[in-house]
Amino acid sequence: MNLPPRLIEGYRGFRHTRFRRERENYARLAETGQSPDVLMIACVDSRVAPEVVFDADPGEMLVVRNVANLVPPYQPDANYHGTSAAIEFAVRTLRVGHVVVCGHASCGGINVFRQNALQGTDTTGGDFVAQWMQIAAPATRLACDGVDPLQDQTAMELAAIRQSLANLRTFPWLAERERAGDLVLHGLHFAVMDGALRVLNQETGEFATLEDMPLS
Amino acid sequence: MNLPPRLIEGYRGFRHTRFRRERENYARLAETGQSPDVLMIACVDSRVAPEVVFDADPGEMLVVRNVANLVPPYQPDANYHGTSAAIEFAVRTLRVGHVVVCGHASCGGINVFRQNALQGTDTTGGDFVAQWMQIAAPATRLACDGVDPLQDQTAMELAAIRQSLANLRTFPWLAERERAGDLVLHGLHFAVMDGALRVLNQETGEFATLEDMPLS
Amino acid sequence: MNLPPRLIEGYRGFRHTRFRRERENYARLAETGQSPDVLMIACVDSRVAPEVVFDADPGEMLVVRNVANLVPPYQPDANYHGTSAAIEFAVRTLRVGHVVVCGHASCGGINVFRQNALQGTDTTGGDFVAQWMQIAAPATRLACDGVDPLQDQTAMELAAIRQSLANLRTFPWLAERERAGDLVLHGLHFAVMDGALRVLNQETGEFATLEDMPLS
Amino acid sequence: MNLPPRLIEGYRGFRHTRFRRERENYARLAETGQSPDVLMIACVDSRVAPEVVFDADPGEMLVVRNVANLVPPYQPDANYHGTSAAIEFAVRTLRVGHVVVCGHASCGGINVFRQNALQGTDTTGGDFVAQWMQIAAPATRLACDGVDPLQDQTAMELAAIRQSLANLRTFPWLAERERAGDLVLHGLHFAVMDGALRVLNQETGEFATLEDMPLS
Repeated sequence: MNLPPRLIEGYRGFRHTRFRRERENYARLAETGQSPDVLMIACVDSRVAPEVVFDADPGEMLVVRNVANLVPPYQPDANYHGTSAAIEFAVRTLRVGHVVVCGHASCGGINVFRQNALQGTDTTGGDFVAQWMQIAAPATRLACDGVDPLQDQTAMELAAIRQSLANLRTFPWLAERERAGDLVLHGLHFAVMDGALRVLNQETGEFATLEDMPLS
Repeated sequence: MNLPPRLIEGYRGFRHTRFRRERENYARLAETGQSPDVLMIACVDSRVAPEVVFDADPGEMLVVRNVANLVPPYQPDANYHGTSAAIEFAVRTLRVGHVVVCGHASCGGINVFRQNALQGTDTTGGDFVAQWMQIAAPATRLACDGVDPLQDQTAMELAAIRQSLANLRTFPWLAERERAGDLVLHGLHFAVMDGALRVLNQETGEFATLEDMPLS
Repeated sequence: MNLPPRLIEGYRGFRHTRFRRERENYARLAETGQSPDVLMIACVDSRVAPEVVFDADPGEMLVVRNVANLVPPYQPDANYHGTSAAIEFAVRTLRVGHVVVCGHASCGGINVFRQNALQGTDTTGGDFVAQWMQIAAPATRLACDGVDPLQDQTAMELAAIRQSLANLRTFPWLAERERAGDLVLHGLHFAVMDGALRVLNQETGEFATLEDMPLS
Repeated sequence: MNLPPRLIEGYRGFRHTRFRRERENYARLAETGQSPDVLMIACVDSRVAPEVVFDADPGEMLVVRNVANLVPPYQPDANYHGTSAAIEFAVRTLRVGHVVVCGHASCGGINVFRQNALQGTDTTGGDFVAQWMQIAAPATRLACDGVDPLQDQTAMELAAIRQSLANLRTFPWLAERERAGDLVLHGLHFAVMDGALRVLNQETGEFATLEDMPLS
């Protein structure tokens, strides 16, 4: 079937190690169904797998991944809304207690957005990426530490996370659950280079590295 | 910040074990950028993390995840197309050599689709999931082993994978790379219960369990 | 060959996951030889693998394991001294910087010693275990927190660690390196039940749980 | 306490990942005691941790480690016999079903033995290693594939494994259990460089690489 040998090899490794060790957990999850407490909205980037970065067990987090971990605003219509469907499934069906927008450093989607914005044209010549990244456009007004997001890759990555959190709150049934105290939103940013994790303080709009901040 | 303790604990575990062990790899990937050879299209389900099931290293696979691992047909317009943007990024920018649609057993999205189709109404009462699952509607005509997908959860899961592969081929620049032999499409199905992996034979439309099939 | 299937399965898992991921490290270590900085003296117990408890990479620690992690006193003669040979190899050939005696809770060897000592006879009826455990006999005088080691399993485990450290210092070339500041001795105790790790304060003879003690 | 930072860091990694994931298993093993089915006799070498190479779970294998994974002949007397005590504990108390002698490539102890034998003097100038390695002396008569063990490092490593198996059979209560079909002996050799595992065919005295040999 021409399946890449690495996939076959990797699957066999999984079967012989982790699946073997956790097979009771998998069987139980197949039997009872999933009930994750976290929805993680992350990027498609190959260097930032949420289950790896947060060492998650099977069953712990629902994970939607798209280019640049964006959340579009609430827009119920006849079109296909993949990310919004995942949010609806997580919040209304599974009733997760936490929704996390997890961005990361060196984000290719954010870089495309910045290049396009700075040059006033779609530098990719493609059909979908440039348009999809327009979700981040309002974020150019969300400076962090006084840095203009368009002038700085990290500032734009952080601003886009804040914009996605704002867009999440346009989903009426999500906002209602947040108001009722049944659901908490979070913004995180992972640095591939040194593994640092920044956490958004939603009152100030600033991000702080995890180990530097008070935890309770 | 009310970040769930499991996320903090899990991140610290990652930092002290896997990140420590592979930090040179992470640093190199941050420096040189990613160049994955595989785009994995998978479900948001918390029990089916592709990096776990295929024991992937950072940098190996771009992963887009949506409800029921669906690919909508090619439709370039002014709307936000998250999955299509990920496909464009993988195929046109990163030039991956493989695109894998990876479905799984006990898929909640497929179950919603079947209930709605059988009852002729949206049983969820929601805004997005039922509409999103309409991508799978043409798959009801794709029987596996003579089983009607609407009558059987597994048959519908397998049929939806075949439909997504068909939809992938409506993307002109993807089909062109496939014709040129630069890209190969694959369909997989993972059973949470016993860890079995089925592989689609695209000539016959049938799926066979990995260990049962000839590998070369 | 009747090799237990679990060993074959486990080895294949290792080959497909960890060995694959670290094969450059293994190849380098095969090429250049080992130069571990730590000698770990641990028990044969199946629940207390030092490489697991300390998440060690290949090449990081030399590990000698015997019943109850005992060190006999220095006694160079014509007999076979397995543990002493390992200590000589670590200290004189590899010149490790740290020697760690790592005991653990629910130690079967310590339990045999206590039963024999309390009943004044060898309760095992065997050839070697009772005699080997006599190395721990002087430790009955090393109370921790005022608890008589013979009356308390944990107190005896901790006392035996202190005795092994005292015996280590009877090796003249080891003591010399310690005096010169080239080598540091440590005592640890791992609790299987809750995973707690106690660290010996060699000035007071008391053990403190790792997370409770100042680290620098 | 001057505990090496890597030990502290590694222990914390273990606590947050593997111990967390398997804590029920650890608690159960602490409660019920261990009942491993395998005694593994392995080398102190830092590159060859049996629990890593065989991906063992806690509780699966008792592990004795000494220089060059040697078993001395049965010699019940008033001396301290660490390895024999471990064998007694495994075979008579825990009643393991398998005893495995697991050697490896680039063994420093075997190398010392060969240098000493070839030069007719103790090249280490030490107290214990040269004497301990004399256990392997009879193995110089056990050629593999017609290669003289003294002339070839690998041949000597393989011959020493066969000698240790012969010595195991001098323990009367072990031999009795083997005759009764209650216990099986095995010889393995692990190559650090490429991860290959050789298995001894005890009828022919030859070793074959695992993947090359028929498994049932």
